Amino acid sequence: MNKQMQDYIERIEQALDTYLSHEGYEGQHAIIEAMRYSTLAGGKRLRPVLTLEFCRVCGGDIEQALPFACALEMIHTYSLIHDDLPCMDNDDLRRGQPTSHKKFGEGIAVLAGDALLTYAFEIAACDNGGLDPRRVVQAVTALAQEAGYCGMIGGQAIDISSEHEMLSYEQLKELQNLKTGALIRAAARMGCIVGGGDREQMRAALIYADRVGLAFQIQDDILDIEGNADTLKKSVGSDARSGKATFPAMFGVQACKKMVRELTDEAKLGVSIFPDAKFLRQLAEYLVTREA
Amino acid sequence: MNKQMQDYIERIEQALDTYLSHEGYEGQHAIIEAMRYSTLAGGKRLRPVLTLEFCRVCGGDIEQALPFACALEMIHTYSLIHDDLPCMDNDDLRRGQPTSHKKFGEGIAVLAGDALLTYAFEIAACDNGGLDPRRVVQAVTALAQEAGYCGMIGGQAIDISSEHEMLSYEQLKELQNLKTGALIRAAARMGCIVGGGDREQMRAALIYADRVGLAFQIQDDILDIEGNADTLKKSVGSDARSGKATFPAMFGVQACKKMVRELTDEAKLGVSIFPDAKFLRQLAEYLVTREA
Repeated sequence: MNKQMQDYIERIEQALDTYLSHEGYEGQHAIIEAMRYSTLAGGKRLRPVLTLEFCRVCGGDIEQALPFACALEMIHTYSLIHDDLPCMDNDDLRRGQPTSHKKFGEGIAVLAGDALLTYAFEIAACDNGGLDPRRVVQAVTALAQEAGYCGMIGGQAIDISSEHEMLSYEQLKELQNLKTGALIRAAARMGCIVGGGDREQMRAALIYADRVGLAFQIQDDILDIEGNADTLKKSVGSDARSGKATFPAMFGVQACKKMVRELTDEAKLGVSIFPDAKFLRQLAEYLVTREA
Repeated sequence: MNKQMQDYIERIEQALDTYLSHEGYEGQHAIIEAMRYSTLAGGKRLRPVLTLEFCRVCGGDIEQALPFACALEMIHTYSLIHDDLPCMDNDDLRRGQPTSHKKFGEGIAVLAGDALLTYAFEIAACDNGGLDPRRVVQAVTALAQEAGYCGMIGGQAIDISSEHEMLSYEQLKELQNLKTGALIRAAARMGCIVGGGDREQMRAALIYADRVGLAFQIQDDILDIEGNADTLKKSVGSDARSGKATFPAMFGVQACKKMVRELTDEAKLGVSIFPDAKFLRQLAEYLVTREA
């Protein structure tokens, strides 16, 4: 990981820590601890980094994008907490640690997720460092659209209702486009809005988000087959055991590696309209050569 | 119920129906149906009515307040769906109908709640009929603050963690002030913001919301003891059986009726600064003389 990436991650994690440093009333300690536990548990911070970088390449001030970047990461975090619940994926571990409901109980886990989702919109709306309120409204709208029932949640709903069905390639792509792609698209949209990007820049950012989002998901599927359990901090082969529809199950690993390469090249080409897209190209490359 | 109230409720329910008329992709039908099922299941619509009325008494256009009113009702609805889950209150019936998880399964119920919460912010941010974006940002912030971990969710967290504890009067009042009061406060704040109310009007609206919110809750507790199960569409005496801390359990029914009367009078007095507060006074009275 290069220095730019490290700098971004440090800023994001520091801001998340500050946002979640309120003590609350007695009786609220558990929920605040649960919000902190999942949000500050590490992770690639891909979505908030993209938000900051798209703001920068559009000529904006990344300080103004920071609240939106943190809001997006909180929404990503809440979606993982609720996804891990017994009534959803029923996972006991996440990044090598007990999942929220294992540590705090199901009731607090549900509420911590709700609270992160709600707090995300509070941060996005109120903490905008003098940003033009028209842009704030646009960015909040983009965030809600991509996170909602026509975006990420819609993907999770399809996932639940198609659990034991055979999906076609088009259906699987649509599912992933919503479930994983939507929040990456939110990063691109919010970054461009805050940074004052024009229509052409927004279009390029969305192409990048689309290709990177799909490549990222396929790479995840490949790692579940070929990866190292220690590096990944999770068991491998779980997709095959659960009979989950994945791209490698459909096309084989070799064809998937070729798809990932092509998508990554398209993503890199897509952002060539930005005068300084070096980091975006490196990031696309990093995401598909990663081992965890 | 008077004509003004009926008019408001009709407008709100029509708008909610329109907001939730999107068909979605295949696989999303269940979640959209679940969102509609709980949102359009009736209810007093107290919070959205207050949003519209506070906008009106501040001299605003209630059409501009309608998206915020609907957003608030969606947030109220999501909180009921999640509250009814087995890991929370574990209720099978709500307003005489099966609860969301009983009808659609727990996974879809969690997602439908998440989706309503997210959609609320989308509607509030994007569908504002030409309202000054500064006011939109303020209203979205107010909504997120009152619904979040320092507001309603904070109250639910206290409720969960104090389930088997004796609460003092101050603690019980604080719990209710967050759990029930916060969204009523959101209604008052958003109505005044959208309507362009000044500082004094906002202050009066918050006093009204505070007194009405507490009176409403105490009246609910009284109805659980004295009410008619058929009119209420729920069993009575459930608070006493579950050993729940309530105001009547603490002070007796007679003292509570006196509190409700005093709070209602304070609420009515509080809004006397508005030139036309007749409806607000009627509403305060209606809420504490209701039988369901």
